[in-house]
Amino acid sequence: MDIEDLAQRVSAGERRALARAITLVESGRADHRAQAADLLAALPQDKQALRIGLSGTPGVGKSTFIESFGMMLIRKGLRVAVLAVDPSSSRSGGSILGDKTRMDLLSREKNAFIRPSPSQTHLGGVARRTREAVRLCEAAGFDVVLIETVGVGQSETVVAEMSDLFLLLLAPAGGDELQGVKRGIMEMADIILINKADGDLKPAATRTCADYAGALRLLRKRPQDPEGYPCAMTVSALEESGLETAWEAMEKLTAWRREHDFWDRTRATQARYWFTEDVKQRLLARLQEPEAKAALEALSDEVAAGEADPSVAAQAFVDRLGG
Amino acid sequence: MDIEDLAQRVSAGERRALARAITLVESGRADHRAQAADLLAALPQDKQALRIGLSGTPGVGKSTFIESFGMMLIRKGLRVAVLAVDPSSSRSGGSILGDKTRMDLLSREKNAFIRPSPSQTHLGGVARRTREAVRLCEAAGFDVVLIETVGVGQSETVVAEMSDLFLLLLAPAGGDELQGVKRGIMEMADIILINKADGDLKPAATRTCADYAGALRLLRKRPQDPEGYPCAMTVSALEESGLETAWEAMEKLTAWRREHDFWDRTRATQARYWFTEDVKQRLLARLQEPEAKAALEALSDEVAAGEADPSVAAQAFVDRLGG
Repeated sequence: MDIEDLAQRVSAGERRALARAITLVESGRADHRAQAADLLAALPQDKQALRIGLSGTPGVGKSTFIESFGMMLIRKGLRVAVLAVDPSSSRSGGSILGDKTRMDLLSREKNAFIRPSPSQTHLGGVARRTREAVRLCEAAGFDVVLIETVGVGQSETVVAEMSDLFLLLLAPAGGDELQGVKRGIMEMADIILINKADGDLKPAATRTCADYAGALRLLRKRPQDPEGYPCAMTVSALEESGLETAWEAMEKLTAWRREHDFWDRTRATQARYWFTEDVKQRLLARLQEPEAKAALEALSDEVAAGEADPSVAAQAFVDRLGG
Repeated sequence: MDIEDLAQRVSAGERRALARAITLVESGRADHRAQAADLLAALPQDKQALRIGLSGTPGVGKSTFIESFGMMLIRKGLRVAVLAVDPSSSRSGGSILGDKTRMDLLSREKNAFIRPSPSQTHLGGVARRTREAVRLCEAAGFDVVLIETVGVGQSETVVAEMSDLFLLLLAPAGGDELQGVKRGIMEMADIILINKADGDLKPAATRTCADYAGALRLLRKRPQDPEGYPCAMTVSALEESGLETAWEAMEKLTAWRREHDFWDRTRATQARYWFTEDVKQRLLARLQEPEAKAALEALSDEVAAGEADPSVAAQAFVDRLGG
């Protein structure tokens, strides 16, 4: 594979080259990993997209929202990429993006690019691959990269760690319940969007929005937020209402953060975080190499048979691994 | 430190030597780690205690239960050690065992040994240290090792992975609610104990017990369980009632598992698990060594400044680490 050529074609915004490049970074093969590193190193570092993380449990209308919101951005002349982080997708096949037909219009737009979650059960692996895919989309000149997650396990944290903005999409709740949204997730959100503010559900959506706005006011003020953020608002992905207002809120927040130096600082912190995570992953990946794996299994048998203490055997193994 | 001598004194059941040995395995210092490995290797491998994991949130009467249950075992002529896994203890100081005075009688018994959780925020570290402390207690001839946890984060899983039996201690619930016990934790439990079956709370305890018994019957049958297990029963740690019945249930289950080869098989599986975990921890610990740490920080600065891609820098770092 000609990596230089691929890097150039990705940078020129060719969608097929982008798809191929993502397939490369998703591969676990050692030679592919080396090629992927070369590819990433060959890409220009100067293009930045707005990375928007989007979390919402199944049933809140996430794919409809992405479709409507994405089409609105396309109409504004922006290029939109959609990626997914779903560590469960290999087991359940449950990723929304596994089914592109649910984003019928967007998937046919030449200025849109939709990519399902890499199928892998290990969140760390999905995270690294998705982050590299984000970089590829940026190099390919996309203006907005939407990173969606269904919020299984720690996946919201993973997505928030690679996003400039984090959106939480919710459905109208009955009564004044706060849908059991974990406090930690609330604290990650920059904007909470109550979807389905249409038809019969509109009053419930308005009430739910007020509840969340109240809850957000109780959270400690974060340095990266201007007055009035984080905020809650209603949208209807179905009727395509509220989307402009939501986009304005995102643009305003982004502009403020750029101006007050939080944009660069957050990206730098995130880059450090991913670098450290990546080092750990690669270090642990050594245990999967054939020789190490065989030695590990042999020692594991001794430990299971009670012939060696786990700690003592572990020390011996790591010493032997050298380095 | 004379490790041979320490190993002998631990094996002779000297409590002060045991305390000193646990302090050694809890230390993070490299020279102490090496000595700890020597110590563990020098211990006899043939003594086994009954390892009982005990989980329960604050307020269910865990320390009172340990006191009453432990004293009952002592009266039976058994030697009882109590250890804790509490990854939050260094932050909150919240470990029950941090306050030995709450187990007033037990802490004064010469056949009892109580040790609070090693103070560390990292669950992996706490887990390894606790598992090594269990081994030391076994070598010191304790018959029962109780490993308690308040169930923060993944700590129940950690404790279950080092236990022969796993107990879940609960308080009586109002109405027919199941106290929001996570399904995963229910599935780990061998015996659910509803505490505080005394005074005004007795009817509620009986009802809660029936609710859990019903819920347990809905779970899939596990191969390691004889007929009638997992089970739920009421106890009163305060009035010391139900404890004999609970102990009989534990003995019966243990005997069945020994007879049907599940005891050895579970221990072998656990030993494999801990060996693998320990290898990973030790591998990652290399990143904390001065030279690696300095190199990591320098590269991290480059990554944060946008001069290098996180993946590319990570690959370069791991290559340089060698091995």
